[in-house]
Amino acid sequence: MRNCYLFLLTLLLLACKQPVPQHALVFQSDFGLKDGAVSAMKGVAFSISADLHLYDLTHEIPAYNIWEAAYRLEQTAKYWPSGTVFVSVVDPGVGSERKSVVLKTQTGHYFVTPDNGTLTLVAASMGISEVREIDEVKNRRKDSGKSYTFHGRDVYAYTGARLAAGVIRFEEVGPVLPAKVISLPFTSPAFNNGVLTGGIPILDVQYGNVWTNIDDSTFRQLAVKAGDRMLVEFTQADSLVYRDSIPFANTFSAVPEGAPLAYLNSLLQLSFALNMGNFSEQHHINSGPGWQVVIKKIEPGK
Amino acid sequence: MRNCYLFLLTLLLLACKQPVPQHALVFQSDFGLKDGAVSAMKGVAFSISADLHLYDLTHEIPAYNIWEAAYRLEQTAKYWPSGTVFVSVVDPGVGSERKSVVLKTQTGHYFVTPDNGTLTLVAASMGISEVREIDEVKNRRKDSGKSYTFHGRDVYAYTGARLAAGVIRFEEVGPVLPAKVISLPFTSPAFNNGVLTGGIPILDVQYGNVWTNIDDSTFRQLAVKAGDRMLVEFTQADSLVYRDSIPFANTFSAVPEGAPLAYLNSLLQLSFALNMGNFSEQHHINSGPGWQVVIKKIEPGK
Amino acid sequence: MRNCYLFLLTLLLLACKQPVPQHALVFQSDFGLKDGAVSAMKGVAFSISADLHLYDLTHEIPAYNIWEAAYRLEQTAKYWPSGTVFVSVVDPGVGSERKSVVLKTQTGHYFVTPDNGTLTLVAASMGISEVREIDEVKNRRKDSGKSYTFHGRDVYAYTGARLAAGVIRFEEVGPVLPAKVISLPFTSPAFNNGVLTGGIPILDVQYGNVWTNIDDSTFRQLAVKAGDRMLVEFTQADSLVYRDSIPFANTFSAVPEGAPLAYLNSLLQLSFALNMGNFSEQHHINSGPGWQVVIKKIEPGK
Repeated sequence: MRNCYLFLLTLLLLACKQPVPQHALVFQSDFGLKDGAVSAMKGVAFSISADLHLYDLTHEIPAYNIWEAAYRLEQTAKYWPSGTVFVSVVDPGVGSERKSVVLKTQTGHYFVTPDNGTLTLVAASMGISEVREIDEVKNRRKDSGKSYTFHGRDVYAYTGARLAAGVIRFEEVGPVLPAKVISLPFTSPAFNNGVLTGGIPILDVQYGNVWTNIDDSTFRQLAVKAGDRMLVEFTQADSLVYRDSIPFANTFSAVPEGAPLAYLNSLLQLSFALNMGNFSEQHHINSGPGWQVVIKKIEPGK
Repeated sequence: MRNCYLFLLTLLLLACKQPVPQHALVFQSDFGLKDGAVSAMKGVAFSISADLHLYDLTHEIPAYNIWEAAYRLEQTAKYWPSGTVFVSVVDPGVGSERKSVVLKTQTGHYFVTPDNGTLTLVAASMGISEVREIDEVKNRRKDSGKSYTFHGRDVYAYTGARLAAGVIRFEEVGPVLPAKVISLPFTSPAFNNGVLTGGIPILDVQYGNVWTNIDDSTFRQLAVKAGDRMLVEFTQADSLVYRDSIPFANTFSAVPEGAPLAYLNSLLQLSFALNMGNFSEQHHINSGPGWQVVIKKIEPGK
Repeated sequence: MRNCYLFLLTLLLLACKQPVPQHALVFQSDFGLKDGAVSAMKGVAFSISADLHLYDLTHEIPAYNIWEAAYRLEQTAKYWPSGTVFVSVVDPGVGSERKSVVLKTQTGHYFVTPDNGTLTLVAASMGISEVREIDEVKNRRKDSGKSYTFHGRDVYAYTGARLAAGVIRFEEVGPVLPAKVISLPFTSPAFNNGVLTGGIPILDVQYGNVWTNIDDSTFRQLAVKAGDRMLVEFTQADSLVYRDSIPFANTFSAVPEGAPLAYLNSLLQLSFALNMGNFSEQHHINSGPGWQVVIKKIEPGK
């Protein structure tokens, strides 16, 4: 009788055990949302497993803009749990000699993408655990060999979905590559002799806010607190574009409507905005290589 | 032996019972789809429970437009089942003294949002069951205390996801507030002395149709049926913008291409369109405070 | 004792069996993403079954553009598994006499849509298994009878969701219609006397590439291989718009930046692009009826 219990209990546990938990599969591309390209990728993924959790980062990366693809991954990936698989397809060199890879970071996130600079920032911030080249003999959608131009569908979505669904293990992606990725150049923030400098990696496009790459701890060296004013200069290719005194604030509403403020954005990087306005448009500030910000503290009473 | 059956049957039912059903979590914001903000919110929600059903209402609310946020909730919420949790983040006052709340309506829907007018219309139409202020000590993403500007991710998505997944009960959101919400002013439709008046809360932007807030039953007092003509005036700040005779129709194709018609829209509110054309663009009609419509029936034969 | 085992084993299998697998429900429309219309459709679907897999094809079909709706279905449907239910709502004739139908293709895909030309291409490529008219007495959202203008929500999403969730079988959609659909005219590709001709059904809008309807096997009759040059003429209404020599290439990077190339797109149709540029914009090429391409091979050495 006790055997009966034990045997049935085992059966029961085997039969009723939950399915292997599946990881999120998050897509990013420069395909836009006007045509069927994103849906074709999701159809390929859904065909691999109906239980996959399919999500989007964005598909509005400006066409061919690898830097912005790199930035959006960096901005977002850390809020998804370890094990999440990202498929990022901004691929101006599709069909050329750039490698198709999967990066596993030290945080346990996976990035399936052409290795063309897209991995610049997540490799730096999350650390490289291992890079594997996708073996396109094994990890390519069946009968897709004649299409040279849609690796997003035929290689990346296919491989990402099989990885997220547990159909293949990371080791089955393909051969190990040296633990590095193609990196785009970017300027680091610095504090020297009371002067803070940094780059402008991106604009907060929806609101027109200007996001620098000056992080919380570098900024703290300037010893500025809410209400203090700073002298802020934006330059492009060393030409002055904007120069004014701006207060640091914790909330937009700490300054009048239309007035400028400096604040730490949602990634805790120093940023600039107009309360209820569009800073970048009004003052013609843009982002990318060549754009720089130089900041000094204005001592109270001066 | 019967004990064996009963015991095992119980075990079986316990082990195999379906997981607690989870509710839909529906996101709305003015973040747009070009950057990683929406995906960061979903990553936070997915980290709480991989089984959550995550959907979007829209993320294309014009920046800071609380009225349109209110309208989109009203337009959509009733088509989702009781128990659905909406997270709406149009939050020009982030970091200011506006309260972060969860509204439970009498229909059993939940709305997680800054209480800044976003709840104006759903509170009126669905009824307030209870309003609770989000206790940001307990209901805030871990280690997010240094970021002041992305409550959508750190407070609203986090709280909404925990509520939808059943990790917390509504009572655990935070302290009860008085059963009211911040309401934006809006004009009600009326019928007096044979004249129908109302506001223009919104345009049907994709097609250029003009949606009034004159509901089915108010409109019926005008005793107009399909084919009857009405004299329609649109005014802005009491200045006449448009005046013409327009027939009421059940279908767009009841009038020639390019011709105007009046109809009841999908929310059963009196609306105006050009068949296969763009009414608002052609006749420069917009929506919001100050826009009004005045309608009289034209008696047949006159 | 053996009875005990068998009985319990049976119980166990019954109790623990997986739920009926549900099919994907994929939405397409010209509603855009700025308002609540798409979300209302999804709420209706979610109310029918919380376990449905809801996806989007695109909601950015230009308003009333039935041809593009037809093209996007054709571009995408084959990458989704048999059994997938598509709901496509581009419906300029809503409320008119056009029929609401469900097409089952020979590939086992379902298309829920007004029969207004939307089915032109998938009916041709996937084959018609059966067409049924939606019985709006049985297959219409409860209490939606007063709304004439949002069949996407009240009829199509509702019927598609019930079909995908297995609430109704295909036979319960409504009466069988003759096995044909409303077809829009389109020109077929041809090869005669060394000259290849075809139409331009669509642009690859995000990148400005020009997609013809000349398929892989028709193109092969021209006997062109990578590196060979072709004389390409684009005409609109028989007027010459563009004429130049263009090489055929397998990858964009086979030509210099800014230079034109011909290639087979992701659907294996002959297409034209500028490497890192926008062909259609630069050379004023558009798509649709009246646009034609004429191609001759340039023999090497000439």
